[in-house]
Amino acid sequence: MENKDFDKIIIGIDPGTNVMGYGLLGIFDGNPSLIAMGVIQLSKIEDHYMRLRRIYDRVLSLVEDFLPDEMAIEAPFYGKNVQSMLKLGRAQGVAMAAALGRQVPIAEYEPRKIKMAITGNGAASKEQVAMMLQRQLNISSDDMPRLLDATDALAAALCHFYESKKPISSGGAKSWKDFIKKNPDRIVNT
Amino acid sequence: MENKDFDKIIIGIDPGTNVMGYGLLGIFDGNPSLIAMGVIQLSKIEDHYMRLRRIYDRVLSLVEDFLPDEMAIEAPFYGKNVQSMLKLGRAQGVAMAAALGRQVPIAEYEPRKIKMAITGNGAASKEQVAMMLQRQLNISSDDMPRLLDATDALAAALCHFYESKKPISSGGAKSWKDFIKKNPDRIVNT
Repeated sequence: MENKDFDKIIIGIDPGTNVMGYGLLGIFDGNPSLIAMGVIQLSKIEDHYMRLRRIYDRVLSLVEDFLPDEMAIEAPFYGKNVQSMLKLGRAQGVAMAAALGRQVPIAEYEPRKIKMAITGNGAASKEQVAMMLQRQLNISSDDMPRLLDATDALAAALCHFYESKKPISSGGAKSWKDFIKKNPDRIVNT
Repeated sequence: MENKDFDKIIIGIDPGTNVMGYGLLGIFDGNPSLIAMGVIQLSKIEDHYMRLRRIYDRVLSLVEDFLPDEMAIEAPFYGKNVQSMLKLGRAQGVAMAAALGRQVPIAEYEPRKIKMAITGNGAASKEQVAMMLQRQLNISSDDMPRLLDATDALAAALCHFYESKKPISSGGAKSWKDFIKKNPDRIVNT
């Protein structure tokens, strides 16, 4: 299937400073399917800026080749220390720049949220996420990647697809707590 | 003086998530002079990604308009918390992407290092840095900016100029400790 036949294309990114994963999901007639996934190997590049440039160049070429409509990023909101968060922020920043420079809107999801959306368990392992992705997208075992950074990125894209499909019946509430707050009349005190 | 007359142009960036400063320094015959400086106002942009995009777009147009040979970034290596460091990393990342995408090499300097290079005091105030810049670059008072993020960025560029002018007599050592490590024969035990 050619790219142009999809109703929408979502690029998922799992940014890291050693390995960056990416996954491209095509939506056709409401059904998601795998277009491509892979990793950008960074650990062999010693220079910090050359790593950032590799991320930028690769994400930009993915954006130019596949023309995604939206980008979904796996984004942890906390980390070991300020040093690692600064590095992670830079890796995210250059990946985002490649999307923003081409008018691709970005959505970000916490790892726990992505795992929950794909497996129903916010504490699922990367292997479980990969297995559920393989099942939900009918990916043949031959097409499954060796590095789970690729499936993590694809999971971010699929999570974004599920999120955008959600009915807005809850008035745009983001959580159950939020829903109750926005819809006090719908609480039945028994 | 036209840009093309300079031997080298350095763009200095002081990245922030509320205001980003920039300063362009032209080197002619070993002498630095001001080309331009200013700020990118971000505080009125509510959307986080739109802020990042504004930074990316603006830095990219500065890079394309002035064709700098090198970029110097003021980069704190620590911060209040992991949240603010992630945001700062993203702001730095998109600014860096604009340079990396145009093959402009990047150097980063800690705020303390920049203040030391410009004023001789690593704990100098922003006002002192601005005053010393005005003196060292013969900037007329009318050309001095209201916001000190612009002078901070110009200071990063001037710090980078001073650093690149330094003789490499210490064998490329980056610090006194490093120097001792690389030159054990030059330690005199008294």
